[in-house]
Amino acid sequence: MGMAKSSGRPANDRFLRACVGLPVDRPPVWIMRQAGRYLPEYQAVRSRRSFWEMCTIPEVTTEVTLQPVRRLGVDAAILFSDILVPLVAMGMEVRFHPAPEITAPLRNAADVARLHVADPGGVYASVAEAVRLIRRALDGEVPLIGFAGAPFTVATYAVCGGGSRNQAEIRALLFSDPATAHRLLHAVADAVIASLEIQCESGAQAVQLFDSWAGILSREEYIEFARPYAIQVLERIERAGLPRIYFAPGAMTHLEAIAGSIPAEALGIDWRMPLREAAKIVDGRAALQGNLDPAVLLGTSATIRAKTRGVIDEGRSGRGHIMNLGHGILPETPVENAQIFVDAAKGEALAGGED
Amino acid sequence: MGMAKSSGRPANDRFLRACVGLPVDRPPVWIMRQAGRYLPEYQAVRSRRSFWEMCTIPEVTTEVTLQPVRRLGVDAAILFSDILVPLVAMGMEVRFHPAPEITAPLRNAADVARLHVADPGGVYASVAEAVRLIRRALDGEVPLIGFAGAPFTVATYAVCGGGSRNQAEIRALLFSDPATAHRLLHAVADAVIASLEIQCESGAQAVQLFDSWAGILSREEYIEFARPYAIQVLERIERAGLPRIYFAPGAMTHLEAIAGSIPAEALGIDWRMPLREAAKIVDGRAALQGNLDPAVLLGTSATIRAKTRGVIDEGRSGRGHIMNLGHGILPETPVENAQIFVDAAKGEALAGGED
Repeated sequence: MGMAKSSGRPANDRFLRACVGLPVDRPPVWIMRQAGRYLPEYQAVRSRRSFWEMCTIPEVTTEVTLQPVRRLGVDAAILFSDILVPLVAMGMEVRFHPAPEITAPLRNAADVARLHVADPGGVYASVAEAVRLIRRALDGEVPLIGFAGAPFTVATYAVCGGGSRNQAEIRALLFSDPATAHRLLHAVADAVIASLEIQCESGAQAVQLFDSWAGILSREEYIEFARPYAIQVLERIERAGLPRIYFAPGAMTHLEAIAGSIPAEALGIDWRMPLREAAKIVDGRAALQGNLDPAVLLGTSATIRAKTRGVIDEGRSGRGHIMNLGHGILPETPVENAQIFVDAAKGEALAGGED
Repeated sequence: MGMAKSSGRPANDRFLRACVGLPVDRPPVWIMRQAGRYLPEYQAVRSRRSFWEMCTIPEVTTEVTLQPVRRLGVDAAILFSDILVPLVAMGMEVRFHPAPEITAPLRNAADVARLHVADPGGVYASVAEAVRLIRRALDGEVPLIGFAGAPFTVATYAVCGGGSRNQAEIRALLFSDPATAHRLLHAVADAVIASLEIQCESGAQAVQLFDSWAGILSREEYIEFARPYAIQVLERIERAGLPRIYFAPGAMTHLEAIAGSIPAEALGIDWRMPLREAAKIVDGRAALQGNLDPAVLLGTSATIRAKTRGVIDEGRSGRGHIMNLGHGILPETPVENAQIFVDAAKGEALAGGED
């Protein structure tokens, strides 16, 4: 891949240690969607660049990926990217206005048959270059998390296009033509695997798989259509030896089905389920990541500090805790409140000590 | 209220019996949003009338309420209405395009102070008249379910307006100005109580309280901002002596917190949680209503029948089961598939017998 993978652990390895349940002086903290619209410096880049350019011009991707690390002092960087990158690599046309719109959503077996195997050049090559540039810019300070959508979630976009109400199109496909749904999920899984493999080879030090639409499925369908493909992806990248985080927001009623089968070192927990309850269900099978309600960051500083302390406390009940929000940071968040959250997470954690 | 309340139980009282856990020959079946866009006869009315006219002209409300009873042979009618009716009764301006839009959403203490006590005339009088007309038209055949949104859910619309992304506005209010949020919730609870009391006095034979936005809240906020107001409403209408159903779709991770405190004879279960698991958590404290994935009705007839059978089987594990979907019927549903569902629910239930 041109450049040798940077070797060695980052100076700040709290995140990597917490992922695998090793002791840390305090839980690491980062923020889902930390490179995003709440940051003025992100808005500044966004005013000059399209969303897609931010995902595919390696220097721009590097800049926005690093912004929250510099400003907030989080314990990990996460690759700025989009969940739909694998669909583009498979030949689909996606536009961002900035909400994603898929020009020709897949609706039947013939549409699915037209997908091609993900092109390792093109957009994947740009992402690989971005990963190398980010690692170099981070200079071993904090680890870089790679990023992909889980196959069911990516397939949901492929079938529903943008802005679908109720995701009725993919749900109809599952119950009317499950064989086609499975063919699509297989193809998408291969593309997601290729994306993550390239990220790992290029220097990602952990990966997070987002299964953002898993929560539209009943247990039976989650087990048939979402879980096996998430497992396939996570098993394939196991050989890279990096911590794997799986996060299915909105699907916490399926947490036992997740913890019992998903091969991940850490599981994201959304804000609806108290972390202490999640720890009971997960029962030491994975570290936990989360889960402050992102809306708390729209509140007063006293509330942010108190609720952050609450989550840190609850996190002690699990086998390893990565402090985070319970979903992506809201675009309306005042940037100073994001800072209060990060500082509180660090301070409260140290003040509270370890068990 | 002018006309005497129709007395006596309906000829088909399966629904009322199942709500309170009494034995039935088979579980009753109805469909959330059964008066809706999937019905050609509803579309025909809708082409001549605005959505708001359908909610407020008693003869039109009666017509659309009865349509699914006539066509599908469901075991209960539910008043056709909108969750925002109490806001209109409190003096807010709401427009439907057909998605609801609130002209001036409430954002602060001054906005909340301008709300007035719900006017018992106006829109509430129309709803009362519709309930009387519907009861007369049903002629004692099947029971009529009254309908309201729970205070937190109605307040969410009042604060966010229509089409909010992430309901950030009300979530911000909870964490930045909880006192104002509580004042709003108190006022809305009073208006919801008045709405349900008028429906009960006019002849509703059961009520369902929809807490459709409860699922955006963490446990702590659910317990502080949603549950107490739902309890207040349900306790106040207890004196009517009618079965009460509480449904908080998307909040099934809070089911223990719901079952332990909400005074309702039956609890709606959304499609993500298997009914058998819900029965374990609820543990005989309420009957269960639900919970076929509405998207199953977009599938093949064989799939609809098999999955319907599965839900009926799981329903035997609870104390009383009202067969239904796990959320509102999708507008895309072919009407013949709704019929297959109802027929399968009736047939499979009888074929399967009782425990």
